[in-house]
Amino acid sequence: MIVVVCLNPALDITHRVPAVNWGGVNRPSAVYARPGGKGLNVARTLHALGADLLLTGLVGGITGAGIEAELGRRGVPAALTAIAGETRRTFTIAADGTGAGHKGAVTAFYEAGPEVSAREFAEFRGQYEKALAGAEAVVLSGSLPTGLAAGTYATLIETAAAAGVPAVLDTHGEALRRGVAAGPAIVKPNLEELENLAGRRLSAPLGGSGASGASGASSPDLAAVTLAADQLRTLGAQAVVASLGPQGLLAATGDGRWQARAPEVAGNATGAGDAVAAALAHGLAIGRPWHERLRHAAALGAATVAAPVAGEFSDADYARALTTVTVHRAAEDLGAARDRDMALDRDEVG
Amino acid sequence: MIVVVCLNPALDITHRVPAVNWGGVNRPSAVYARPGGKGLNVARTLHALGADLLLTGLVGGITGAGIEAELGRRGVPAALTAIAGETRRTFTIAADGTGAGHKGAVTAFYEAGPEVSAREFAEFRGQYEKALAGAEAVVLSGSLPTGLAAGTYATLIETAAAAGVPAVLDTHGEALRRGVAAGPAIVKPNLEELENLAGRRLSAPLGGSGASGASGASSPDLAAVTLAADQLRTLGAQAVVASLGPQGLLAATGDGRWQARAPEVAGNATGAGDAVAAALAHGLAIGRPWHERLRHAAALGAATVAAPVAGEFSDADYARALTTVTVHRAAEDLGAARDRDMALDRDEVG
Repeated sequence: MIVVVCLNPALDITHRVPAVNWGGVNRPSAVYARPGGKGLNVARTLHALGADLLLTGLVGGITGAGIEAELGRRGVPAALTAIAGETRRTFTIAADGTGAGHKGAVTAFYEAGPEVSAREFAEFRGQYEKALAGAEAVVLSGSLPTGLAAGTYATLIETAAAAGVPAVLDTHGEALRRGVAAGPAIVKPNLEELENLAGRRLSAPLGGSGASGASGASSPDLAAVTLAADQLRTLGAQAVVASLGPQGLLAATGDGRWQARAPEVAGNATGAGDAVAAALAHGLAIGRPWHERLRHAAALGAATVAAPVAGEFSDADYARALTTVTVHRAAEDLGAARDRDMALDRDEVG
Repeated sequence: MIVVVCLNPALDITHRVPAVNWGGVNRPSAVYARPGGKGLNVARTLHALGADLLLTGLVGGITGAGIEAELGRRGVPAALTAIAGETRRTFTIAADGTGAGHKGAVTAFYEAGPEVSAREFAEFRGQYEKALAGAEAVVLSGSLPTGLAAGTYATLIETAAAAGVPAVLDTHGEALRRGVAAGPAIVKPNLEELENLAGRRLSAPLGGSGASGASGASSPDLAAVTLAADQLRTLGAQAVVASLGPQGLLAATGDGRWQARAPEVAGNATGAGDAVAAALAHGLAIGRPWHERLRHAAALGAATVAAPVAGEFSDADYARALTTVTVHRAAEDLGAARDRDMALDRDEVG
């Protein structure tokens, strides 16, 4: 069984309108609403894979009850801890037209989310420890709600390790930095999260090798990404899988460095990183070797991009992607990357 | 026990923002969310009065589950019928500032609400008939969701009458017209609803008696309102209580015509009409004579206007208003009103 932790779920609501009547009453032509937040996306993906899972986390208020009911309807197994605060909503207005009042196609309103008390978190920890008893893996995904310390994921990773359960961590910022130090089995940063953690750019301008790269389109510098991933391993992570969008996955593991790529597909990348995290946890739980684990992760990410609804995938796309993904051991020139980074470091202080 | 029918509930969400960043991401400084729709307001008011009530109606989807959970938390007794569609949300953005992107203080997005199937409505009717068995009164409030015929309230009033339960009806348009014909104990239109039903203006320009009244501020013409109320009685309603805002209540009943007024209070009139409907049903259920029934209704309406949150009231305001409300038998010059209406009718065709 895979335990999924979602401490800051959300309800994502989208209203489609022909054109917004600012300052007036609008009647949307279409309404979409579904549970979101990275942990919920991971749980839904695992459920669609047919994996045995248990979703844990914090829900509260009107929105929390709605999310819990919807998960029940979808058959996603969950043991969520009730909190007094109100689970957050995101509200997005997508305007089709470009009328007089039109100021941009998409306007979003993000609620801050609940304040979580120490007592509530202690109750969650009880649920979490109970769930770990029968688990083969745990996934910790997404942001932390207000009131929880940046070391929260680190603590949960240590608790899992004490119960013999390997952890997959997918978050950002200080929570990721602290989590890495707690020794998770896998961390899955994207390029931006890895850059923030490394404190330097890991991409090069597209179509050129000029020294400046401060603006314009860029693509990940695979050697630099590999180096940053290696550094996260020295800081504690047992394996690092960087998700690089169309460039696929770059992994630094106890079984060496790997790269996995699916043929590029057009679509909606929202939720693709969560699909990768779900597949990595699934592969970890059922003991897939690294090259198979990465093949499934890259294929599921690509199938998720191809699906019209963010964070979902079709079995056919997934099966097709599994046959077209390439996985190979990486052969980067690490020396060159190191030299480049040292030059950048000099630029920064000079 | 009072049965409250809410066929088209809503979740009302308000985001307060300093100024709206149209086309960008906004993080509201305050978020308010609460179950709404006229029937839910009536149920909450009756619950706050300590009345024995049962809320019936239709809820569905993520929003429906959230509303049901919130009613449970507030302790409002409910036996709601589940539907497949999604209960509607209203989303209001209230901007404090008047920055560059500001186009008006309040922008609203109203979801259309669910489509209700014949099978779902039949299931509701079963619940409703069961609830009527122990009821002293029923309140039918608000709009009808898509898929339900305009005669729905009429049918429900007839079902209640067959069970010996008097009905209070508060709706508008064709549903009100059809409902009146079914012989409810009380209908409670506001001025606009009464005007729509009468097919003519029932107000006079403020501060003058000129023949034109097409524009500018106006106040209800009490004689004309009385006449329109009398006409609704001839069409089937046993009593008509028109809620006229600061002008109070004007009632045409089997015990004669009455007027009830509270001293004018500043505040938020939203939900005040629902408080009046709740008080009328309460008075009906416990057998208050008309003058007492109207005194409580006018006082509760005034206390609701005075409360900072729409649709709520404080016991202190209610108690105070009960001592200041005036109730008296109306002594309108009905002949003059009739003459005026006939003159208006001639104007319309001439």
